[in-house]
Amino acid sequence: MTNSKNEGISRRELLIGAGYAAAGIAAASAVGSVSLPGTASAGKKATSVEGVEPWPYKKLDPDKIAEKAYHEWYGNFCSMAVAEAILGELREKVGGPYKDFPVHSIRWGHGGAVGWGTLCGTLMGAGTVAALVTGIETGESVANDLMYWYSVNSLPKYKPQDPKMDAPVTSRADSPLCHVSVNKWMTKAGYEFFTPERKDRCARVAADIARQTVVLLNQVQDLDYEPTHGNQMKTHDMTAQNNCLDCHSS
Amino acid sequence: MTNSKNEGISRRELLIGAGYAAAGIAAASAVGSVSLPGTASAGKKATSVEGVEPWPYKKLDPDKIAEKAYHEWYGNFCSMAVAEAILGELREKVGGPYKDFPVHSIRWGHGGAVGWGTLCGTLMGAGTVAALVTGIETGESVANDLMYWYSVNSLPKYKPQDPKMDAPVTSRADSPLCHVSVNKWMTKAGYEFFTPERKDRCARVAADIARQTVVLLNQVQDLDYEPTHGNQMKTHDMTAQNNCLDCHSS
Repeated sequence: MTNSKNEGISRRELLIGAGYAAAGIAAASAVGSVSLPGTASAGKKATSVEGVEPWPYKKLDPDKIAEKAYHEWYGNFCSMAVAEAILGELREKVGGPYKDFPVHSIRWGHGGAVGWGTLCGTLMGAGTVAALVTGIETGESVANDLMYWYSVNSLPKYKPQDPKMDAPVTSRADSPLCHVSVNKWMTKAGYEFFTPERKDRCARVAADIARQTVVLLNQVQDLDYEPTHGNQMKTHDMTAQNNCLDCHSS
Repeated sequence: MTNSKNEGISRRELLIGAGYAAAGIAAASAVGSVSLPGTASAGKKATSVEGVEPWPYKKLDPDKIAEKAYHEWYGNFCSMAVAEAILGELREKVGGPYKDFPVHSIRWGHGGAVGWGTLCGTLMGAGTVAALVTGIETGESVANDLMYWYSVNSLPKYKPQDPKMDAPVTSRADSPLCHVSVNKWMTKAGYEFFTPERKDRCARVAADIARQTVVLLNQVQDLDYEPTHGNQMKTHDMTAQNNCLDCHSS
């Protein structure tokens, strides 16, 4: 079940163009045949990403991937939990390029980038997976939609089949930032950062994001994906989140 | 000039252990021989990262890489600019695993993750490069040091050999967040987000981070790298930056 092709351009690639335009983000076309690693690096000219193609994909079971991400978290934390749950499954079901991808390269995203509390590591894992599976343009739309989904939903939602403990509460972050998301949960739940309960909450959030990523990847594969969230830069006239008053209330 | 080996453990791997302990971040040992892509994914057990080894490295010229990153920015923005400037050079000088690494997988980090203003994309590129070149543990120390360096230096510093325009001003972000960093520069420089001057500022910051990343990678290769910045989570009892009053002043 690899991409269906039509006159040398896959339908998923055509969807890419449409999705990207809908999200209002400008980028080079992802249609072509030259792979990036073979592209010469001129030094005074940007490397072309034309020809970067989505990797072959087989639809995955969102709940199975969520359960895997939950358990992966306990070994390698949030960023690699999401990436490895999905890419590890594709390594087995699809093989090919997934066999050589060094998933450990994004493990450092945990704690919002080695503990700096910036982008939630689950989203770093998800964004990288989306780029590999759906290519540059659709990948950015999927990442954008996932950051919005993360921000506006009360998490964690997923109930592990084999949980380490009960989950105390859910909370809405209104932000894709680790620091904001974790702090709102800690305040509501009444647990400090270095507690088993906070760790389990983050493992469940990894499950949620891995699950939702698979939901969107499956939609792309079915040609049923429509980008839903607009462009942050165009909305705010700069790069920004939507929870402005969390920081600018004074 | 690949890693020197001693009883099956490279000196760079030994340095990894020391550096990681110094940074106060807990992780599995990176010493071993099993590569991650071959590791079975059990589903209810985290994937082992034991055996993940640093990729072979040849020392690079920091100024050459900075110039490349500056020009790369104009094609693929911040995250890929840093990653491709370094990994593209290693693809040519070292080859091996660099030939297959899909650098486009982190292009979506631009604008603090497709425009959400979170982690500066230059640091997403740098952190990924550090993980590949120096392995999981030293990679996290290098990423941690780079985020601190980014936060406390007035940027951009680098003067391109072939600039697109003059650089108006430098500014200190006190944060690794794109939104904060760009906003402080815009306020000081008097330019809006969608201006050539702001874009050129970000291209120069990409050059700065690519350059500093190479400085640290060269130190690791020379066994001359000492982690300098402490652990954010231990300092703040949660994931956080150091510019607390930027958001919590009220």
